[in-house]
Amino acid sequence: MDKAQQDALKKAAGIEAAKLIENGMIAGLGTGSTVRFLVDELGRRVKEEGLEFTGVTTSRRTQEQAEGYGIRIVNIDDVDHIDVTIDGADEVDKNFNGIKGGGAALLWEKIVATNSNKIVWIVDESKVVDTIGKFPLPVEVIPFGAGQVVRRFEAKGYKPVLRLDSEGEPVRTDENNYVVDLHLERIEHPEDLAEDLITTVGVVEHGLFLNMVDQVIVGDPNGPRVLTNANK
Amino acid sequence: MDKAQQDALKKAAGIEAAKLIENGMIAGLGTGSTVRFLVDELGRRVKEEGLEFTGVTTSRRTQEQAEGYGIRIVNIDDVDHIDVTIDGADEVDKNFNGIKGGGAALLWEKIVATNSNKIVWIVDESKVVDTIGKFPLPVEVIPFGAGQVVRRFEAKGYKPVLRLDSEGEPVRTDENNYVVDLHLERIEHPEDLAEDLITTVGVVEHGLFLNMVDQVIVGDPNGPRVLTNANK
Repeated sequence: MDKAQQDALKKAAGIEAAKLIENGMIAGLGTGSTVRFLVDELGRRVKEEGLEFTGVTTSRRTQEQAEGYGIRIVNIDDVDHIDVTIDGADEVDKNFNGIKGGGAALLWEKIVATNSNKIVWIVDESKVVDTIGKFPLPVEVIPFGAGQVVRRFEAKGYKPVLRLDSEGEPVRTDENNYVVDLHLERIEHPEDLAEDLITTVGVVEHGLFLNMVDQVIVGDPNGPRVLTNANK
Repeated sequence: MDKAQQDALKKAAGIEAAKLIENGMIAGLGTGSTVRFLVDELGRRVKEEGLEFTGVTTSRRTQEQAEGYGIRIVNIDDVDHIDVTIDGADEVDKNFNGIKGGGAALLWEKIVATNSNKIVWIVDESKVVDTIGKFPLPVEVIPFGAGQVVRRFEAKGYKPVLRLDSEGEPVRTDENNYVVDLHLERIEHPEDLAEDLITTVGVVEHGLFLNMVDQVIVGDPNGPRVLTNANK
């Protein structure tokens, strides 16, 4: 599949997901290339259909895009609930375990998701996998002592790589932390890995989102497919 | 005990602990009022006895104090080990479980401790308790969504209070995060609590240091007492 085809599927999934947002809702808006299409569609509905809703964003990038469309964005601490959060994902398996964080926004994404009544992911079909782990697992770490965390991960065989920007400097998240990507290839026991990562001193959060999502909307050449998580 | 007496005990513990630092060592230097006396004594030994060692500090405050004495301070990522870390504690029980973070430096303190071959705490005797928890347990949290974390803690009966500075603004740690103090009074099951806190999305680290310390040096009116942890 070339990029134009992939973008067409992402866009179809984004447009489908936008239908979940109704007047008066509080909606969490994720981050990433598929979410861009979602926000474009929401912007269109605000303008053309008079849709009114409040957004909580998971990154500064999404906030800027949404505010550009006149969507009202509030801080997560200024709402008492979030009706639905729509976000992308880098991989998702049939148990609804996923990897997020390719865009370095996993921390805010997980905070918003945790506070949402319903979580929906929009992906193109290349993201639906049998076993997660081929996509490098992002881990957000405190800069102080990050080198020691990387050494620990190396000793455990996690194949960590500190994420660098185009100038060779460590990428900084919205919270000014580093991202270490684990090149695991196959994650057979995601719960155990999640426990090991989160209890590692210096780790802020990791990109494993295990059984958190309620629905996955898959951009498919035959039209968007909806996968519903019955175990949540 | 008045403050002058307490300071005298802290100072005695700090001077005793300074004896653990030998020429050529890499030493972790903690944070707090007792550690100030330790660093003063190390500064004296550097000047009067020609002591040479390398320090790794757990806060900007300690770094400034140590560098003022000409002590060589390096970044934690520039050493391959730390021989011994000496730090204070807010409470410690007979199982060598402790609370730290009254000075808001718990994150860097825990990172340094995790990378140390030996950990020593210096305390006055008021810090040695039967059950930890009377001292409010500090939890470092991401500012984004901190209000939601506080609400979660409230619902669990953890009696959280966001720590504010003298101007009424949230205290910021060296990593620019917030501190929420849990007024638990008694922590009967510290391992369970630690697990619950660290897996709460938005929590960076907490002030429970469970069975991490090797030795506790207690400032006592009859002279410093050394408690040694046999289970580590």
